[in-house]
Amino acid sequence: MDKEQLLSLLQPETQLINEAMAAEFAGIKSSRLAKVIDYGIFSGGKRIRPLLTVLVARLVAFTRMPEGIADEEDLSPPADLYRLAMVFEFLHAASLLHDDVIDHADTRRGKKTANQLWDASTAILAGDYLHTRAMTLAGLVGGDKALATIGEATSAMIDAEFLQAQTVADSNLSEENYFAVLRGKTGALIGAACEVGALFSGANKEQRAAIRTFGDALGLAFQLVDDLLDYLGDPDTTGKATGNDFVEGKMTLPLIYAIENSSADKRKILTALLAGEASQRQSKISEVTAIIDECSGFSYARQGADTLITAALESLHSFKECDTRDTLEGLAHYVLSRNK
Amino acid sequence: MDKEQLLSLLQPETQLINEAMAAEFAGIKSSRLAKVIDYGIFSGGKRIRPLLTVLVARLVAFTRMPEGIADEEDLSPPADLYRLAMVFEFLHAASLLHDDVIDHADTRRGKKTANQLWDASTAILAGDYLHTRAMTLAGLVGGDKALATIGEATSAMIDAEFLQAQTVADSNLSEENYFAVLRGKTGALIGAACEVGALFSGANKEQRAAIRTFGDALGLAFQLVDDLLDYLGDPDTTGKATGNDFVEGKMTLPLIYAIENSSADKRKILTALLAGEASQRQSKISEVTAIIDECSGFSYARQGADTLITAALESLHSFKECDTRDTLEGLAHYVLSRNK
Repeated sequence: MDKEQLLSLLQPETQLINEAMAAEFAGIKSSRLAKVIDYGIFSGGKRIRPLLTVLVARLVAFTRMPEGIADEEDLSPPADLYRLAMVFEFLHAASLLHDDVIDHADTRRGKKTANQLWDASTAILAGDYLHTRAMTLAGLVGGDKALATIGEATSAMIDAEFLQAQTVADSNLSEENYFAVLRGKTGALIGAACEVGALFSGANKEQRAAIRTFGDALGLAFQLVDDLLDYLGDPDTTGKATGNDFVEGKMTLPLIYAIENSSADKRKILTALLAGEASQRQSKISEVTAIIDECSGFSYARQGADTLITAALESLHSFKECDTRDTLEGLAHYVLSRNK
Repeated sequence: MDKEQLLSLLQPETQLINEAMAAEFAGIKSSRLAKVIDYGIFSGGKRIRPLLTVLVARLVAFTRMPEGIADEEDLSPPADLYRLAMVFEFLHAASLLHDDVIDHADTRRGKKTANQLWDASTAILAGDYLHTRAMTLAGLVGGDKALATIGEATSAMIDAEFLQAQTVADSNLSEENYFAVLRGKTGALIGAACEVGALFSGANKEQRAAIRTFGDALGLAFQLVDDLLDYLGDPDTTGKATGNDFVEGKMTLPLIYAIENSSADKRKILTALLAGEASQRQSKISEVTAIIDECSGFSYARQGADTLITAALESLHSFKECDTRDTLEGLAHYVLSRNK
């Protein structure tokens, strides 16, 4: 399945998710809040998290039907599923709104950030609003287990932000610590999006565990690719400047691997830059990218992502073969091949 | 009941709330996050919101017992009640953390704010963390109705922040609009704290409505007194500079009344200052306070608070007379007489 095929398969579900979100915002009183929320949610985004919830719910529901009773096509998902799925887009958008305030970011996806277009206060409050709506929907639509799963994932995201802040420019950072941050930052929410979809369709314990494995591996791979794109992506496609993570002192896998595996003189260059000023790091991005490439830091991280996706695909095998499973597999491959 | 008597009556419940909150934070991984949360929650605060939840739950439970079956003393509240009550302290603390970032505030309750002591990023994330934990507890401990009530209150708080921001320095602001902001900003959360306590003890429809009336009126009166203290409080006691609201262009009831009811020349002074720069307003605080006082703006607002508290007390009459009801009445009187 190539990217075009995948997107055309996902298009109807994406449409339903977008419609459900728009309906959910109809009751906002302040016109300014309504505008910011609209901008935060509808100015971009691939809806990967809610799509995972919907697709996993379909896969689990189909797998649980007695053999021969139902055709996959007959299983039209209830409206509630989309209201539950949107929780993950709300939480994702809320975290982007707050992250952009924290990082004083001017652009995101090639467009002005909300804190730039309005101000930090507006972006903080809009994030809070999305967060409140997300948690309320999580409990009312998804029930206790879904709320607990989402609450844990959100707490883990924040814990990981602190962990990452503590390790900025720490050239001794271990791979283990890097993966701990990764699991919290992206893995937790993507894992929860999958798990909640499974819960929605009444997954049994084994199915829930298999889906969690799928989601966690997918989330980690997603963030690994993000970290690769930060060095290697095309700014015109990603909408972000190259080498940002290095300038900010963020210790991602390609850099960690390079520090551990490059020659002594190259390692000295990297650690000196990390100990110095951000402006100096800014001027050395292409040199640093060459050093990482030379000692295979990028291919090492790429291989890590490949391994994770293989594990994710493996854990889908316990579910019935069907179009939805194919689409989920396509989505997993897309995570590896995406260029933005 | 004087203030000392009230505080000594509330002390054991306050202690139980504090202990329950401390236990809830035991699992935080990042040491920095743990420190900020500890600072945000334990460096002050009178626990009025969780106390209301606990007291209302006790009052409703006692009222619902068949006559003569139980002594009030026998009704020791279950541990879960404290976990539910703390939700309101978490939400309150989260909103203060974010408000202080938004207002670039340096001090709160006479102490440095978290954004000053650490940085804005830390304060934003700590607020997000408290918010997540609050919403999760709300659903898991309080159930669907409590979660929905709390979700609505939190959304209303944010809507009101936007409404208030839109009306800064608007000298045409009506009392009606002022009360709309008030209801959202403070009323909603205090009203919800009371309502959720009633729900916890299985209040019937009438009891729930009576408690909501009590909580809403109490919340409005609370904020009215806050707005009075902003002009008339002693900075050494409140920990805040006097006249801050006027400097920021916040249209509160004493000022709105003064604009409507002062002589033409005094009104001109007020509207000109509101149309001008904050720095100029800063230099004219004592003059403005004198103008408001002269046309009875402060006594008008004070009378509004008195009327609200009378209504609040009235709505408690449908519940059984007991020590808890006395304490709630004492708390309502305290809201009027507090000086910080």
